[in-house]
Amino acid sequence: MPDPRFFQAAGPFSIEELATIAKAEMSASPDREKLYQDVAPLQDAGASDLSFLDNPNYLEAYEACQAGLCIVHPRYAERAPKGMDLLLSATPYSAYARVANAFYPPRKRAAVIHETAIVDPTAEIGEDVDLAPYVIVGARAKIGANCRIASHVVVGDGVVIGEGTTIGPGASLSHCLVGSRCQLHAGVRIGNRGFGFTLDPEGFLDVPQLGRVVLGDGVEVGANATIDRGAGPDTTVGSGSKIDNLVQIGHNVQIGQHCVLVAQSGVAGSTRLENHVVLAAQAGLAGHLTIGQGAQIAAQSGVMRDVPAGQKMFGSPAMPIRDFFRLFSTWQRQLKTQGKKG
Amino acid sequence: MPDPRFFQAAGPFSIEELATIAKAEMSASPDREKLYQDVAPLQDAGASDLSFLDNPNYLEAYEACQAGLCIVHPRYAERAPKGMDLLLSATPYSAYARVANAFYPPRKRAAVIHETAIVDPTAEIGEDVDLAPYVIVGARAKIGANCRIASHVVVGDGVVIGEGTTIGPGASLSHCLVGSRCQLHAGVRIGNRGFGFTLDPEGFLDVPQLGRVVLGDGVEVGANATIDRGAGPDTTVGSGSKIDNLVQIGHNVQIGQHCVLVAQSGVAGSTRLENHVVLAAQAGLAGHLTIGQGAQIAAQSGVMRDVPAGQKMFGSPAMPIRDFFRLFSTWQRQLKTQGKKG
Amino acid sequence: MPDPRFFQAAGPFSIEELATIAKAEMSASPDREKLYQDVAPLQDAGASDLSFLDNPNYLEAYEACQAGLCIVHPRYAERAPKGMDLLLSATPYSAYARVANAFYPPRKRAAVIHETAIVDPTAEIGEDVDLAPYVIVGARAKIGANCRIASHVVVGDGVVIGEGTTIGPGASLSHCLVGSRCQLHAGVRIGNRGFGFTLDPEGFLDVPQLGRVVLGDGVEVGANATIDRGAGPDTTVGSGSKIDNLVQIGHNVQIGQHCVLVAQSGVAGSTRLENHVVLAAQAGLAGHLTIGQGAQIAAQSGVMRDVPAGQKMFGSPAMPIRDFFRLFSTWQRQLKTQGKKG
Repeated sequence: MPDPRFFQAAGPFSIEELATIAKAEMSASPDREKLYQDVAPLQDAGASDLSFLDNPNYLEAYEACQAGLCIVHPRYAERAPKGMDLLLSATPYSAYARVANAFYPPRKRAAVIHETAIVDPTAEIGEDVDLAPYVIVGARAKIGANCRIASHVVVGDGVVIGEGTTIGPGASLSHCLVGSRCQLHAGVRIGNRGFGFTLDPEGFLDVPQLGRVVLGDGVEVGANATIDRGAGPDTTVGSGSKIDNLVQIGHNVQIGQHCVLVAQSGVAGSTRLENHVVLAAQAGLAGHLTIGQGAQIAAQSGVMRDVPAGQKMFGSPAMPIRDFFRLFSTWQRQLKTQGKKG
Repeated sequence: MPDPRFFQAAGPFSIEELATIAKAEMSASPDREKLYQDVAPLQDAGASDLSFLDNPNYLEAYEACQAGLCIVHPRYAERAPKGMDLLLSATPYSAYARVANAFYPPRKRAAVIHETAIVDPTAEIGEDVDLAPYVIVGARAKIGANCRIASHVVVGDGVVIGEGTTIGPGASLSHCLVGSRCQLHAGVRIGNRGFGFTLDPEGFLDVPQLGRVVLGDGVEVGANATIDRGAGPDTTVGSGSKIDNLVQIGHNVQIGQHCVLVAQSGVAGSTRLENHVVLAAQAGLAGHLTIGQGAQIAAQSGVMRDVPAGQKMFGSPAMPIRDFFRLFSTWQRQLKTQGKKG
Repeated sequence: MPDPRFFQAAGPFSIEELATIAKAEMSASPDREKLYQDVAPLQDAGASDLSFLDNPNYLEAYEACQAGLCIVHPRYAERAPKGMDLLLSATPYSAYARVANAFYPPRKRAAVIHETAIVDPTAEIGEDVDLAPYVIVGARAKIGANCRIASHVVVGDGVVIGEGTTIGPGASLSHCLVGSRCQLHAGVRIGNRGFGFTLDPEGFLDVPQLGRVVLGDGVEVGANATIDRGAGPDTTVGSGSKIDNLVQIGHNVQIGQHCVLVAQSGVAGSTRLENHVVLAAQAGLAGHLTIGQGAQIAAQSGVMRDVPAGQKMFGSPAMPIRDFFRLFSTWQRQLKTQGKKG
């Protein structure tokens, strides 16, 4: 059971309610009266819990599981322990996610404008907005209805935030337009001046950074990640994209919809990611590139050229993943040959 | 036009004023009466805008540009569209930077010590200093004239900050001396104890970190970057050096003047960078090295040995860039040969 | 001498006191009356200072050193300059660390609950706790005796912190249990929701992250580092482990005791590090791996498979370090051969 100091379960739910929430089929003649109190992993679940099997590596745990109810793919229905009711789904992990969201809906603080929040008189704050202690909201900023702004957040002059967006403690935003239902985690830095300068006889001369950051709807930005504003054009992130902790996005970068940028990855200035691109952990993209739709860049890879749609890349500098692993096999053969010689 | 919610143009300026600012030559018989209102990219500029051509990839956009005035290299003067006045410069990007800085000088908040700023009575605050809400200034700290300190910044005991320095929201400084006209962006962490410890029978034993961080004049430090204080000697960054977002500088590191450290790069303890070194994104330098003047380390490279002045390095572990690309060609040939065999 | 604006030496100490503190042997017939005022590097130390020799590269500096007292390995006793007293130790750096900690014990702010700290009435604050200005402590949180919580720290609802733990400015904690005597530096982000979601027809669907972060005793977490809470199981860090600046720890990761994670390294979800593992700077571990006890992962390496206990790994993808350097030698031979041909 999740630690009740941090999580409170909604519910209970009947199997019929859960089947609807999960978009799953009930097994034949389930116990319709029974109420389920919580979700739990296979090995911990008890009679009043719902569990799920997604990864077949856990089949043994599933066969020994004590859960009263389990979400599984129909192909594993027959291997269920006796007495366990089932919810059958072709996508058990998604079904579990829906149910878990029902048991644990995102907790919302009550909407209070704390007396220590400092809101410029020209700012517009929507209905049911929570401004936690020591929040700053600048001149002409607009915060949409139902937003949750945590302690010590700084919303700069003119910044616009859509409805239902949440911002974690200590984050700071300037020169940006943020969509609805975004999640900006603790310590994110959005809208700082890009790294734009030119070499002058007297040293570096800063080039004014006159663009903005524009985030679509439902964008997630991880803790301590940084997104610089554009130099002239905007830096943009399309709706539904997920950015993990400590990611860096340079000026003028355009990120499409439903992209995933895993922790500590980085994108240099003016590079464009089409929709559904995945950039794995610690990977980097050089500047002024185009990464085609659905391309996937492996962890720690470094991309120096445009990547066609759908291509998987690996290595630094990155090459198509098939090439990389052929090369890697060559190296391994060399090592073996050497080993025999030596 | 830059979004007026975030940027307000100064001006207008006549061509003669702009030529002076840009350190550029006017084209023959320009319209001296006309006033220019703004800067704009080639494709967006209108009759009252100034634009610029630097990268020849944009020559077509230049030839079709509607700007009233454009900064170009003299070699492209003849290709200007009819009716466009020109400012001729051998370094058009620098000329543009000067003009753009005239239209968009760094905005300065009015100098107000906000009533919620907590300033130790022994601290010294210069003239025309802005301390935004919830700033903390510790005992015996000194903040020079004309500084702009954003919300929630913490200036630790004894810290000294030169004139005209700006610090972004949520940054924290301790055990450091900061020069004049520095830009420390949101969330920077300067002066934390270095990662110094030794293995003792009972576990790790911390070694006191008794040095400082010393930043020269005009140093820029990007959002959420971290610079640890020295263990005994100081950690130093020379005047005019530019450090990007999420960069890590270890204890005792010495960075020369006019160095550039791009986002997510890192320097391990006691390494010394001479002047004008460039460390590209996600690159790393091992500890106790010397990187010679003007050396350039490519993105994601990992340097394990001293680098001579002027050398360009690539790879992890890094080698001279020419060697790396020769090696890389070998690999590509191996792949082709294999491809034929298979 | 360390800058007195930031550091105040305790002491003075006699050689007998220092020998006890250092767990070292005094040289024959030392000056027992003399008092030592400070520690200093070999090249700076004067007659009333104590210095140390650990790295034999500095033997020349040792032979020319003016320190009144020096910690050295017995093998170098004979090379000491005339008139210098010695403390003999088989582990001079540890001995120095002990002495330096005596001269410079961690400075503790006086324990004051600042009037601007906002503490929920249901929170429990131990004795002698310092809550600096603008600290937030949430509902039912517990902070053990003797903790030092710096300005603008946010301690979330239900968070538990052991005795004697220090937290730097601007850090934020949620959904976590923190041990005793931990050092969490400025800007750390602990307990944010992990990067857990699944692809649904309408886009990404967040999976509730129902675990916690559990830190053992004496854990250090560097500036701006991030540790996500578990998805169901907890994310855990064992006692005595050291995590450097800008490190990322994903959900469900288990880190053993006395591990070292150097700056900008990262660990993906559900990976387990046994005790005494070292992850060097900018290295990364893929998800769902086991890294055996005492394994060492070199800087910038990327580990994609389980690593046996004691193994040293290098490269991306990582291989046993001996293999990597054999391969690297092959490449260098190829380059030489090519050079001769060309």
